[in-house]
Amino acid sequence: MLFVSFSIVNNKYTTLNMSKYMSMDNLKFILHEVLEVENLCSLEKYQDHDKQSFDILLDATKDHSDKVYYPAFKEMDEDPARYEDGKIIVHSVVGEAMKIAGENGMIGATFDYDDGGMQLPHVIYTAASHIAECANNSLTGYAGLTSGACNLIVSFGDQELKDTYAPKMMAGEWAGTMCLTEPQAGSSLSDITTSAQRNEDGSFKIKGHKIFISGGDHEYSENFIHLVIARIEGAPAGTKGISLFVVPKLRIKEDGSLENNDVVTAGDFQKMGQRGYCTTHLVFGEKDDCQGWLVGAENKGLKYMFQMMNGARIDVGLTAASTATAAYYASLQYAKERPQGRRILEGGKKNVEAEQTLIIKHPDVRRMLLLQKAVTEGSVALLLTASKYHDLSVASANEDEREKYHDLLEILTPIAKTYPSEMGRISINNGLQIFGGYGFCTDFPLEQYYRDVRIMSLYEGTTGIQSLDLLGRKVVMKNGAAMKALTAEIISAIKAAGTFDELKPYAEKLKEASKTLEETLMHLLQFAMKGDHERYISDATIFMEMMSNIAIAWQWLVMATKAKETLVTGKTIFESSFYENKIHTMKFYYKYELPKISSCKETLMHSDTLTILESNKEVLA
Amino acid sequence: MLFVSFSIVNNKYTTLNMSKYMSMDNLKFILHEVLEVENLCSLEKYQDHDKQSFDILLDATKDHSDKVYYPAFKEMDEDPARYEDGKIIVHSVVGEAMKIAGENGMIGATFDYDDGGMQLPHVIYTAASHIAECANNSLTGYAGLTSGACNLIVSFGDQELKDTYAPKMMAGEWAGTMCLTEPQAGSSLSDITTSAQRNEDGSFKIKGHKIFISGGDHEYSENFIHLVIARIEGAPAGTKGISLFVVPKLRIKEDGSLENNDVVTAGDFQKMGQRGYCTTHLVFGEKDDCQGWLVGAENKGLKYMFQMMNGARIDVGLTAASTATAAYYASLQYAKERPQGRRILEGGKKNVEAEQTLIIKHPDVRRMLLLQKAVTEGSVALLLTASKYHDLSVASANEDEREKYHDLLEILTPIAKTYPSEMGRISINNGLQIFGGYGFCTDFPLEQYYRDVRIMSLYEGTTGIQSLDLLGRKVVMKNGAAMKALTAEIISAIKAAGTFDELKPYAEKLKEASKTLEETLMHLLQFAMKGDHERYISDATIFMEMMSNIAIAWQWLVMATKAKETLVTGKTIFESSFYENKIHTMKFYYKYELPKISSCKETLMHSDTLTILESNKEVLA
Repeated sequence: MLFVSFSIVNNKYTTLNMSKYMSMDNLKFILHEVLEVENLCSLEKYQDHDKQSFDILLDATKDHSDKVYYPAFKEMDEDPARYEDGKIIVHSVVGEAMKIAGENGMIGATFDYDDGGMQLPHVIYTAASHIAECANNSLTGYAGLTSGACNLIVSFGDQELKDTYAPKMMAGEWAGTMCLTEPQAGSSLSDITTSAQRNEDGSFKIKGHKIFISGGDHEYSENFIHLVIARIEGAPAGTKGISLFVVPKLRIKEDGSLENNDVVTAGDFQKMGQRGYCTTHLVFGEKDDCQGWLVGAENKGLKYMFQMMNGARIDVGLTAASTATAAYYASLQYAKERPQGRRILEGGKKNVEAEQTLIIKHPDVRRMLLLQKAVTEGSVALLLTASKYHDLSVASANEDEREKYHDLLEILTPIAKTYPSEMGRISINNGLQIFGGYGFCTDFPLEQYYRDVRIMSLYEGTTGIQSLDLLGRKVVMKNGAAMKALTAEIISAIKAAGTFDELKPYAEKLKEASKTLEETLMHLLQFAMKGDHERYISDATIFMEMMSNIAIAWQWLVMATKAKETLVTGKTIFESSFYENKIHTMKFYYKYELPKISSCKETLMHSDTLTILESNKEVLA
Repeated sequence: MLFVSFSIVNNKYTTLNMSKYMSMDNLKFILHEVLEVENLCSLEKYQDHDKQSFDILLDATKDHSDKVYYPAFKEMDEDPARYEDGKIIVHSVVGEAMKIAGENGMIGATFDYDDGGMQLPHVIYTAASHIAECANNSLTGYAGLTSGACNLIVSFGDQELKDTYAPKMMAGEWAGTMCLTEPQAGSSLSDITTSAQRNEDGSFKIKGHKIFISGGDHEYSENFIHLVIARIEGAPAGTKGISLFVVPKLRIKEDGSLENNDVVTAGDFQKMGQRGYCTTHLVFGEKDDCQGWLVGAENKGLKYMFQMMNGARIDVGLTAASTATAAYYASLQYAKERPQGRRILEGGKKNVEAEQTLIIKHPDVRRMLLLQKAVTEGSVALLLTASKYHDLSVASANEDEREKYHDLLEILTPIAKTYPSEMGRISINNGLQIFGGYGFCTDFPLEQYYRDVRIMSLYEGTTGIQSLDLLGRKVVMKNGAAMKALTAEIISAIKAAGTFDELKPYAEKLKEASKTLEETLMHLLQFAMKGDHERYISDATIFMEMMSNIAIAWQWLVMATKAKETLVTGKTIFESSFYENKIHTMKFYYKYELPKISSCKETLMHSDTLTILESNKEVLA
């Protein structure tokens, strides 16, 4: 109705067409030109793939995203997942998406042939996920979690578990979930109390509550295979006493038919965003009749879970980056269509007789658009780079190489999860601002992106937890091996950029930034060496902000260098403006974003200790 | 239901009690100890007031806020304002709030006795508004806009207009609105097209659409008095041809009865937040029968409107600060009640046998809480300071003083609107993070504050517009007189703080910061002097970020100095920990926030020009 009224008073105003929600050009530039993913196909594991097969898969994903995922994006928000009469109601597109993922083999895409998979490189899987998540960030989790749960079974389960569950899950018929959180155990998983009691037949009796279970129940999957962490009776306290179980909603009887396994859906959390993605509360074994089957060895559950965690964390970062990408294109289009005000002309006078200009011509709007471009394309580049490292860590012929890329993946994962979540939110905030008051209105898409993205800095370990992981574990692991490997990558990027006069000043800036990071880290490490671990780690979140800023500066320098190379050689795939814009956006990042590390350093090296509670002297009354 | 399930599995978890939504102690500390508002009563205009009468008014506001405003806060969100059968439906508390405001004289509180007001200092009105807005940020606008509209009438209207409208409005019986925005004219008010055609009786025939009209219609006010800007036929183009009209929803017939004035409510914008505050689309004169009455002189409408704008902008900043204050207290309480994880002990080992600690003991959580305290209390201090300057600008005996305080108010207004809006959003984001996954759920209060606050950087001039106002107008006005006056205030605060050894280093930091700002401004001014106004102004938003950061650092130094003085003299009103916490929070601000100005300077002084569109060479494809 409101749109109609706009047209009454302003014929020039057109209803927003939101068809562009991501850039295939940008994706293919990063994959083919920057990361040269085709080279992966020279590795034995990926030898059946080639550039063409990658592109076919990506184009097919784009097609489904256009036709199925994107059209349901707003509907899922307006008709949210909810709990009614003991059942979870979700949008019917959930069933369609599971079917598509199953039919296309995407659920087991990265699994080995032996496990029924396609041995697709993770970097291509990540790229495909990016397309789908840009189209609909609330939908992709259903198949994504099924893939993650199934991956745990095929990686650590025995043959019987694999045979029982994997085929149905990979076909998209049965859904999978990850059940970690309990009301008293969120960030602190060592405190879970869900119990497992040994049955005579080797199975376990499971009992406990799990909350925040994404995709935990709905009518479009025949069965739900929950991967549940629980404590076997008598197990040691803390993380060392946690085991992993397969707990189906319906268990399989001898004759192959399904029967109730005493898994009760107790509710669905109503959320600010991602409203189409159900977030359930499950009760296991209320009637003492819930059976679970151990995956792998006893008390190794959290270790297994964490071997999958890199993937899950990268996917959260990717969902954030994708949500922000879709928001960027929506605000870019609006800025190109919305007239408002006039450019400041020479002398600063406004010419009121002139027609209004399009807002994309105002410097402040351009700054907000370029920020979005810098954040989202930088994030996507980092995520794809991390995914390629994943592939090299499992498929490189050389063991040292595998170890190096494993270390790189380890140190990049908390950054690749956190930067897109935190800066993606800020990016979307800028996109919303471009819409003016309309950005706050539900008739326009930005407010949904703004709500949706907010969960990403909470899912799969909050920003605080990621920052502790980065500074407390990854930076110091193996005597700093991962940090050294990353620094070597950055130095190599600086060298490559330095061969072009236009890029040299920015390469120098990254060199300085890298040195600033090192000095700051050395300062902090003094406290760790003195045994003052709380002080060492107390500002880990600021350290994360600093280091992730530099990681994205590195990605931008790499992209700009490739763009420059392509322009110089003339072997352009896209229009030359595409490559020029890449270089321009790199410069934008180095002017507007990279300088923020100075203030991070100042904070991290400040002598006041203000956030560490001293002998219970509470200043927060 | 979810709360119940928590108690099943975790007896220690208590349902969140949200009764504390603001701090009267903090408010009274700023008013009485820092600003010494009692001194205003020595001015002739305010001589009938005293400290006791101020406190009675504030305590009464707290009482209404506790009993009426706060209980409706969540309800208004869940049962949002909406358009049904040609009518706007709002929560019934809107009627109650209008009645309370009318009965207490709050609508005309700051007006002169001659206009039926109480001659209450603005600083006290602002303080009272803060209390009410902390309780319910979506409710206070109804009476607040009525006050603003009535103020325009009593300030610029003729006696007949005053007599006709002011008494009913001040009594809370008739509501008032401000009608500026049109679909094609948001930030660019010079482009409004609503027309006014002279009638024979001296009234005007009004015709046009107005959108985003807050509080524009509902069943709880007998009549709506719209203050509408429109263009009289033949008026000059641009802002110089805009006149102001009173356009009632129902016009008054000779016999005093009311009749329809052809003002049609065409819809209500559905918003992400402030859902209880209706945002209407009004159509004037669709049947050519809408009468309006000119306020003041022709073509002076925007000038009148802008004389009220300082107040409106400060109120938006205040609503942001108040929303963030309420969010701070909710997250503080949660942090005090939620156990999760353990403190990092000497040696960095976790003791899994120990009970979980309360999250308020984790440095990262303390950082997020202190950030909220620093942002919200700093914002409230700035807003109250600006309001006191308003009082001194109208009531000082000395003309030079009045001018000085007018200049200070002019330069602080865009900052006092923008800092709380932008940093209040970030503050609430940190509050939400403290709740973990629960922060994203509608059963907990943070997500509503997060949604509500987002509009504040759009209302009454976006952050971009405020920044243009600051750098393009206020900083340079009267040859920099306002800037000089502000610098003098800051220098005087530095001197006062410098008398205490503990505060000296921070006073030095503010001195440096002030110098950094000056250097940056001098750099930018070169471009203005060369006539390159677009370059001068292109990063105005970054300049705003820098200058507002320093303004809050100034406020914190002032508060810390007063706290220190009080501790030294022993004349404490509150517990000594209250004053110690103020000093602690000042230090926090200087460690974690003030350093950000370095990166702003680096960006502002960078030689690349990346956001100015060069000869239509579009990099944003």
